Amino acid sequence: MFRRIVEAMEGYVPGEQPRDRRYVKLNTNENPYPPSPQVLEALHDAVAENLRLYPRPMADELRERAARLYRLQPENVLVGNGSDELLAIVMRACVDPASRVAYPVPTYSLYDTLVSIHGGQAVHVPFPPDFSLPEALLETDAKLVIVCNPNSPSGTLVPPESFRALLERRPSRLVVADEAYVDFADANCLDLLREHRNLVVLRTLSKSYSLAGLRIGLALGAERVIEALAKVKDSYNVNRLSIVAGAAALRDPRWMEGNVRRIRRSRDALTRRLVEMGFEVPPSQANFVLARRPGQDLGPVYEGLKRRGVLVRHFPTPDLRDALRITVGTDDEIGVLLRVLGQLVG
Amino acid sequence: MFRRIVEAMEGYVPGEQPRDRRYVKLNTNENPYPPSPQVLEALHDAVAENLRLYPRPMADELRERAARLYRLQPENVLVGNGSDELLAIVMRACVDPASRVAYPVPTYSLYDTLVSIHGGQAVHVPFPPDFSLPEALLETDAKLVIVCNPNSPSGTLVPPESFRALLERRPSRLVVADEAYVDFADANCLDLLREHRNLVVLRTLSKSYSLAGLRIGLALGAERVIEALAKVKDSYNVNRLSIVAGAAALRDPRWMEGNVRRIRRSRDALTRRLVEMGFEVPPSQANFVLARRPGQDLGPVYEGLKRRGVLVRHFPTPDLRDALRITVGTDDEIGVLLRVLGQLVG
Repeated sequence: MFRRIVEAMEGYVPGEQPRDRRYVKLNTNENPYPPSPQVLEALHDAVAENLRLYPRPMADELRERAARLYRLQPENVLVGNGSDELLAIVMRACVDPASRVAYPVPTYSLYDTLVSIHGGQAVHVPFPPDFSLPEALLETDAKLVIVCNPNSPSGTLVPPESFRALLERRPSRLVVADEAYVDFADANCLDLLREHRNLVVLRTLSKSYSLAGLRIGLALGAERVIEALAKVKDSYNVNRLSIVAGAAALRDPRWMEGNVRRIRRSRDALTRRLVEMGFEVPPSQANFVLARRPGQDLGPVYEGLKRRGVLVRHFPTPDLRDALRITVGTDDEIGVLLRVLGQLVG
Repeated sequence: MFRRIVEAMEGYVPGEQPRDRRYVKLNTNENPYPPSPQVLEALHDAVAENLRLYPRPMADELRERAARLYRLQPENVLVGNGSDELLAIVMRACVDPASRVAYPVPTYSLYDTLVSIHGGQAVHVPFPPDFSLPEALLETDAKLVIVCNPNSPSGTLVPPESFRALLERRPSRLVVADEAYVDFADANCLDLLREHRNLVVLRTLSKSYSLAGLRIGLALGAERVIEALAKVKDSYNVNRLSIVAGAAALRDPRWMEGNVRRIRRSRDALTRRLVEMGFEVPPSQANFVLARRPGQDLGPVYEGLKRRGVLVRHFPTPDLRDALRITVGTDDEIGVLLRVLGQLVG
């Protein structure tokens, strides 16, 4: 009944979302701090009988607010049901069977799943040890290039300047800067949008704005690009409450920035402690760090942490099994993590 | 930069969602009555700091509640971001380039859009004048058959018994009963799920449960089918508040049933009045009616209604331009519609 590709594929496996809340949950890069009080207030106001009506298909209120914040026009913004949906939409718009899609690896493994769904061909270009943009990526004949920046799971940032060559080498090639974590970083690719019509910047309110539960993503790009993407989205892809919450969140960027400052401070302290414990930690510009013991399978450490109530992320693949990806929680949560980790590897 | 198919296609055009609320809005089959007070109460309780956390990927709370209501197992239920997303998921799981997808027409035109996106081939099988299930549909070699039931825009219901032959003729063919409007009808296909593993029943909370603004759909089917569909959905496709609202709505089916009774009464009165005015109206089992003047283009009537503040739906296609699809609103709204319509066609 189903396509062979679908019968054969494994679905993407997201990080565990445990039902009980006893865990110190440092596995899916959620923000440990709450969303802005203005978001909760706007949501209470929006819980009303008009939930019986469809939302506006292009989520106008949020679209316009995002345009204002990023100094773009509404026509440069597409709102999605999380940036995962926007990634799926980009693939749907670009990838025919056998189309090539290139990205540096290791990275967000959902890209592989989405390429498979369209019968496309994933071109994996390994990051160099310093996680800079691989030279080979410039030369690829792939029609779509995706760079997760800051990258997951390494946390590292490719300087926006490095994107310029990628964008200019082949102007007919679409380049996606997946900036899900960029509010935690020192730089971003927004300015490149002004000069390059083959760039799509993806943002999410899940991480820095503490709204993973409401699924709000933004695609920013040239009007022509946004129009093409909009053709293949579901008609009413973002619900009324998420539109209201997203617009309220973007009206209060100070709240987000305060939380980001705290997380960056905690991240740097966590990194120092992990290095003292003998881990290699690439310099993170995200709200998580990758803690590595080269050559040592950290699966048992992940299991040990979990048994003691601390959830982190371990990817059982050849290039990542010697690492743990740890979300930057509150300082208390990080304290618990470090204490338990010390018992396991000390 | 984009697939040729996407460059060439028109996106699906949903009914207008006007920004101002002065219209008597009878164009997109929303429920004129509010959602259950229990839904609004549950939403207020759920507006909290834990919106910073991802939802559970399979929307467990709602999935389990739906299973209980429909006397199925949770493994027989997939929750979607509206039933539009579930239609897209079914296509993504089943349709390879050149795959054939059959459905009786005229029907919900989103099916055409979704088939195009996958490069599939739409097989349009015309309904007979009485809108019964076309015999030719049984013989099609399409790998996927969709029947909107009750059908939009005709409002007519194919008796569930008619599906049996469709399901049994080719058990390797997936059949979708798109039951978005079925709570307004006298019968449904749920019982067929027990015997047929190639049936998917789609439901939505947008219409009967008055929750179009929250985007909640349900796919019901055999465990194996639901597993395959889940592989190609976005990881976190339904947000926390929609999960809470959906579960609360399904805990209070009496509220929905009360609204449905009122709408059915209004529908039957509206139908009588339209027939008195000289329209042909197929017997509707949905929350809308199709009012037809064979051979007469009703585009100008649609425009006239809109100028006078009444929005209905007109499809400017050869087979539908002589008809208006009118949502069953409150009795007051229907009064306004009938008065203005009388001025225009009287």
